[in-house]
Amino acid sequence: MPTTEPLSATLELALELIRRPSVTPDDLGCQELMIERLERLGFHIARLPFGDVENFWATHGHHGPVLAFAGHTDVVPSGPHVHWEHPPFEPCIDEAGMLCGRGAADMKGSLAAMITAVERFVTAHPDHPGRIAFLITSDEEGPAVDGTRAVVEHLREAHERLDYCVVGEPSSTDALGDVIKNGRRGSLGGVLHVKGKQGHVAYPHLARNPIHQAMPALDALVREHWDAGNEFFPATSFQISNIRAGTGATNVIPSDVEVVFNFRFSTEVTHEQLRERTAALLDGFGIEYHIDWTLNGEPFLTPEGELVDAALYGVESVMGRKPKLSTSGGTSDGRFIATLCSQVVELGPLNATIHQVNERVRAADLDDLSRIYEAILAKLFVNGTAQP
Amino acid sequence: MPTTEPLSATLELALELIRRPSVTPDDLGCQELMIERLERLGFHIARLPFGDVENFWATHGHHGPVLAFAGHTDVVPSGPHVHWEHPPFEPCIDEAGMLCGRGAADMKGSLAAMITAVERFVTAHPDHPGRIAFLITSDEEGPAVDGTRAVVEHLREAHERLDYCVVGEPSSTDALGDVIKNGRRGSLGGVLHVKGKQGHVAYPHLARNPIHQAMPALDALVREHWDAGNEFFPATSFQISNIRAGTGATNVIPSDVEVVFNFRFSTEVTHEQLRERTAALLDGFGIEYHIDWTLNGEPFLTPEGELVDAALYGVESVMGRKPKLSTSGGTSDGRFIATLCSQVVELGPLNATIHQVNERVRAADLDDLSRIYEAILAKLFVNGTAQP
Ligand SMILES: [Zn+2]
Ligand SMILES: [Zn+2]
Repeated sequence: MPTTEPLSATLELALELIRRPSVTPDDLGCQELMIERLERLGFHIARLPFGDVENFWATHGHHGPVLAFAGHTDVVPSGPHVHWEHPPFEPCIDEAGMLCGRGAADMKGSLAAMITAVERFVTAHPDHPGRIAFLITSDEEGPAVDGTRAVVEHLREAHERLDYCVVGEPSSTDALGDVIKNGRRGSLGGVLHVKGKQGHVAYPHLARNPIHQAMPALDALVREHWDAGNEFFPATSFQISNIRAGTGATNVIPSDVEVVFNFRFSTEVTHEQLRERTAALLDGFGIEYHIDWTLNGEPFLTPEGELVDAALYGVESVMGRKPKLSTSGGTSDGRFIATLCSQVVELGPLNATIHQVNERVRAADLDDLSRIYEAILAKLFVNGTAQP
Repeated sequence: MPTTEPLSATLELALELIRRPSVTPDDLGCQELMIERLERLGFHIARLPFGDVENFWATHGHHGPVLAFAGHTDVVPSGPHVHWEHPPFEPCIDEAGMLCGRGAADMKGSLAAMITAVERFVTAHPDHPGRIAFLITSDEEGPAVDGTRAVVEHLREAHERLDYCVVGEPSSTDALGDVIKNGRRGSLGGVLHVKGKQGHVAYPHLARNPIHQAMPALDALVREHWDAGNEFFPATSFQISNIRAGTGATNVIPSDVEVVFNFRFSTEVTHEQLRERTAALLDGFGIEYHIDWTLNGEPFLTPEGELVDAALYGVESVMGRKPKLSTSGGTSDGRFIATLCSQVVELGPLNATIHQVNERVRAADLDDLSRIYEAILAKLFVNGTAQP
């Protein structure tokens, strides 16, 4: 490393976490590292393994509203190491001051920042009002069934309370804290099968070409104005990701066509409405079809309120910049947490390199992120609105 | 066999041909059987093998117009023999008087009928005016490159003359001779690639979905009125046989879509016009695309004239029914012959069972077919219009 200065506690922990190649669903001891630190602070730990996924829930304090830090110790695969400038699981801080390694941005850096923020806060305010919690999984990048979703169900059944949740997902775009995600669009997937009648291209009158039949209907779905979005959400969008028909033979009219599509939807429509409107639209074309639907996630939204205020305050006080609230991007575990917790935000480092080779994050940003998380704690539990 | 009557010469020869499992491109001695019979009649034989395909061209007579009988000794595969009532290459005549076996209808029955028709005609008219020819291949059901196409090119280079051609393809629908094909539609294939920009379904504004872009353009191609056909041809038709886009991932907007389509076209448009009109239409949608074209066959048409008259006469005089002229159906080797010969018809047995298990044809139809072919010879060369 080019610097001989001692590393901050946040960076030391980030390096230790990245050294563990915890590709989904493996945790490889990352959670035990965190648990050890939290136990030392007096946290109560509940290990909640489901299937082959390790999770834990940790709490500190006994009264008042609960602020949970949520995140994941698993990372996406690195791909061949030869494509990396530095080996993905041998983290380092390069000449440009970037912490390099798989998970640096998504999201071991955030986990380290959460731990050190809480360490400083609890040390300074051992009898803080409110409760601090951690909701950590090792299955965010995978099927996401036995991870946050299962933990949330467990908490719901245990009648646990969750008032505020800060998810450490890398929300920033150009500078740390420039974007806070205060919601996510819903995701509704469908596989449409349009049935025709197979035949020979020389005798089209004896066949019914399902591709020909599907096209105007699909075009209508593409052109449909599903909603106008709202203050927080862009308009609901419809995209076809896959289409497939034909035997490969050039002279055979196929018997059916399969179309895979996806809605990203705002809080202005429900998934039930989207299903109904899709069916009504297709019915108008007199085609023979069926659709297999998959609801990947409901949309969620945290309108301005205590948590958004605290997050804005945190970024402004540490970074001197005013974040933008956004609901863009893919789905995240926030969708599961939002079913139990009315205020959820995502706030983490820059996402420019996530899921790519040479994933990296400014080392100094992680120290700042730790201060932002600490400021959020302070705003909510000391200076702020949330009194025990 | 249920009958003890001696079989006709036509059926004897048909049985002998079917016993040879000459699946494309194998001939397995079928052509030598025919050649032996033709040499005995004084035919001059030119064996014309190309690649692994056996072909021959045989002629009788020295002056005047040339009537060629054209056909193929190869057959499509039988599939598992257990699916057949009688083994496909052990021909028999069943209780219902049907000659059963692979090639019975397509087209060893026709080949036998041609040989015996010519035998009777030449025996009766040893110094007949005009010339009689045979153009036989073993590659009609396969790639059709080294078969009739190659022979026709050879004949063209040798400045051989071809005035009339009777192709023995099974043209009949419900009764022998009810349909004579006096042409075939052209076949023009295309593979359209529409290029977009790959992306994530959550960020459609950063991508360009090629499926969305292609759909209205494809719909316009489907709706286009290419022509109205004419007296002999149905309207030109456009069919999409295959469409393919997407990686399989449900959240990725693909980078391109591939669409395989086919025109069956009349003599009212040329393949050049179809290409130009397709491009002009697609250009109107502002999409990025290219098309790989394959001209499978030009359309051909034999308007009424000496050969059609002779064929109509042949069927009417033998069967007492008036045939319908038709250009429907797929392509045939007639498309190649038509480039050298202005009058081509297809006339053969019922096509109900071709390329299927239990291929069969009425045994009596083959004897009648032989008489029809003989009547065509007589009409053209003795009673008819073609004088030496
Ligand atoms: Zn993540
Ligand atoms: Zn054939």
